This record gives sequence, C-alpha cells and structure tokens, in this order.
Amino acid sequence: VGRWKPNAQQRLVLAALDLFMERGYERTTVIEIAERAGLTKSTFFRHFSDKREVLFGADTMTALLVEGIAAAPAGAAPLEAVASALDAIGMHAFTPERRAFVARRRAVIAATPDLQEREALKAFGLTASMVDALRQRGVCDLTARVASQLGSLAWQIAYDRWIDASDGTDFAETLRRTLAELSTQYLLLTRDLAG
Amino acid sequence: VGRWKPNAQQRLVLAALDLFMERGYERTTVIEIAERAGLTKSTFFRHFSDKREVLFGADTMTALLVEGIAAAPAGAAPLEAVASALDAIGMHAFTPERRAFVARRRAVIAATPDLQEREALKAFGLTASMVDALRQRGVCDLTARVASQLGSLAWQIAYDRWIDASDGTDFAETLRRTLAELSTQYLLLTRDLAG
Repeated sequence: VGRWKPNAQQRLVLAALDLFMERGYERTTVIEIAERAGLTKSTFFRHFSDKREVLFGADTMTALLVEGIAAAPAGAAPLEAVASALDAIGMHAFTPERRAFVARRRAVIAATPDLQEREALKAFGLTASMVDALRQRGVCDLTARVASQLGSLAWQIAYDRWIDASDGTDFAETLRRTLAELSTQYLLLTRDLAG
Repeated sequence: VGRWKPNAQQRLVLAALDLFMERGYERTTVIEIAERAGLTKSTFFRHFSDKREVLFGADTMTALLVEGIAAAPAGAAPLEAVASALDAIGMHAFTPERRAFVARRRAVIAATPDLQEREALKAFGLTASMVDALRQRGVCDLTARVASQLGSLAWQIAYDRWIDASDGTDFAETLRRTLAELSTQYLLLTRDLAG
C-alpha cells in the first residue's frame, strides 16, 4: 500500500532540481542530493557520472531519435522522418504531467552557465545523430544536414513555446506548427539566393 | 635585421599545434608549449586561461561578426547582413596563407573530444551572437534565429570545403556558393510544409 515511490534515478533528479532551485547549482553537493533523495552517495554515482549529469540523464533521447528516423516509412521525405521522430520523443519526454518539471529544469539551466554548456553540447550531439540517421536512409549529406538543423531549431523553439503555453496545447502540435512557421521563414529568406 | 618573429601569442599557438600533432593533446603540457615557443609558463597564462583555449584564441570572431551585422546597409535583408559579416570574418581568418594552419588545427580538433566540445560551444556562441545582432537591427526573433542558423550551417560547410579545395578558391566565394546551395535545399525540403 502506501504512496507511490519513484525509482532511485527519478528521486535523485527531483532532489537535485529542488536543491539547485533553493541554493543554486554551484552550492549544491552530490552528498546533499543523495541525502535529500534518501539515498547514498554511491547510489548517486551508480546513476550519474557527476553533478552536472543529473539533469541530463541517460541518453534515451538520442536513441529514440535515431530509432524514430530509421522507423519512418521508406518513402517519407527527410524532413517528415525528422518530424515524426521528434514527435515520438515529445510524447515520451513532454507529457502534460511533466510540464512543471520541465519548466523548473529549464529555469535551473538558464541560471547556470555550466549547465547551459551541457545543454548546448547535448543539442549539438542530437543534431549530429539526426544527420547520421538520415544518411543511413540514403539521404545525401547536404540534405541531411539541412533537415537536421531545421528539425533542431524547430525543437528548441517548440520546447520554449510548449513550456510557456498556458492553454495545454500538446507538444507534437506545437512542434508541427513551429516547423510550418520556420518553413515559411526559410522560404522568405532564401528565395532570392537559391540557384 | 634577422628573420621575422611572430608575436608571443602566435608563437604559443603554433608551438601548441605542433605538439598536439606530434604527441596528442592529452599528453602535452602548458610548460612544454611555452618551452617550445621559447617563452615562460607565466607568459602562456597571460595569453590563455588554459591549454584548451590555445587553439581558440581571443574572441575576435564574435566581435567581427557582431560588427559586420551591425554595419550592413539599413535596407539589407537579414540573410544578406549575415552573409556579408561572415565574408568579413573569412577575409580575416581564412586567407590563403592560413590554409595550411587551419587544416592542421582542424585535424587536431577532430582527434580530441575535449577540443571538439570547445569548438561546438564556440559555434553555439557565435550563432547566439548573430541572433542578438540581427535583433538589434529590428529583425523579429524567429527570422533572426532562422537566418543565424542558416548562416552558421553555411559557415561550417564552407569551412570544410575551403580547407579541402585544392584549387585555391577563396573563402568568400566558397561561402556564397554554399549559401546558395543550402537555400535550394531548404526550398526543396520545406515547400510542402510552409503555410
């Protein structure tokens, strides 16, 4: 019986987020995070290599993204393959119940240069994984880079919009609308340059 | 009289590049870099905060980029402002005499995860600076982000192409051609999505 208990990894993430918000990232130690979660330091290090990793977790996102692109129908256009893979991640990571958590995580990262670096590198790695996954589908290098860059920018903008929206719009819809808007922007910006 | 002597900063950069290529980044120390350059460790630290910074130098690129975007004619389209600023940097950093140096620098970075991270963060910072500089010109946020992302991708691709070209094509021309090609890619990818 008793109340629902999240697993150790989730407890560590929530404890870290609380502490980072209360006293700042720099002034929080791994021991304090473990204590707040009711766990030991060695349990912490079984789940994360260091304090910086606690908000970034295992690399499920990259795996989901690569799988999603590979699983798109054979005839799918490159950008459609990217969009459906991003939708799949959104359904996993950006559910309505997680909105408050994601918003707090974003606030902590925005306040901490070290975490901003980590977030930027993660975005960079995700984009590189998309490029590889598209190449695996036989998409040429230049097209793969353009589609991945566009998907990555749409993702970043949709992420902010989804957190800030008060009307409970779901992530997939926000992403699709953002992609359409960006596409219009690209058309307007590039029509004079294209050969 | 005697032969030309580059200044201390340049000597440190060249010494570091030699040592990184000879024995790898990890196995090279700051003291060895200073010795190879005929300088002291404290001179090294007057120019660079640590070993990782020696290939990234002062932040002249960001300054040139921001100035270049601000200096574009009032009527210039956002992407034109970005392209002319990138041309200006290219003329500064990617001269024919520097091609061999830039190629060696790229090889060392490609072999060193730590330096790849630093390079990725630098690209990220440059893109953010472009977005800010465009906003200063009154460009709306979404357009500024799209133009900067496109400029940044063109820059990365043109950089590789310029290093690999054996025909001595100059950087500005490579960049312009790459931008036109990317524009065509965007048109092909997005025409079905744009509203």
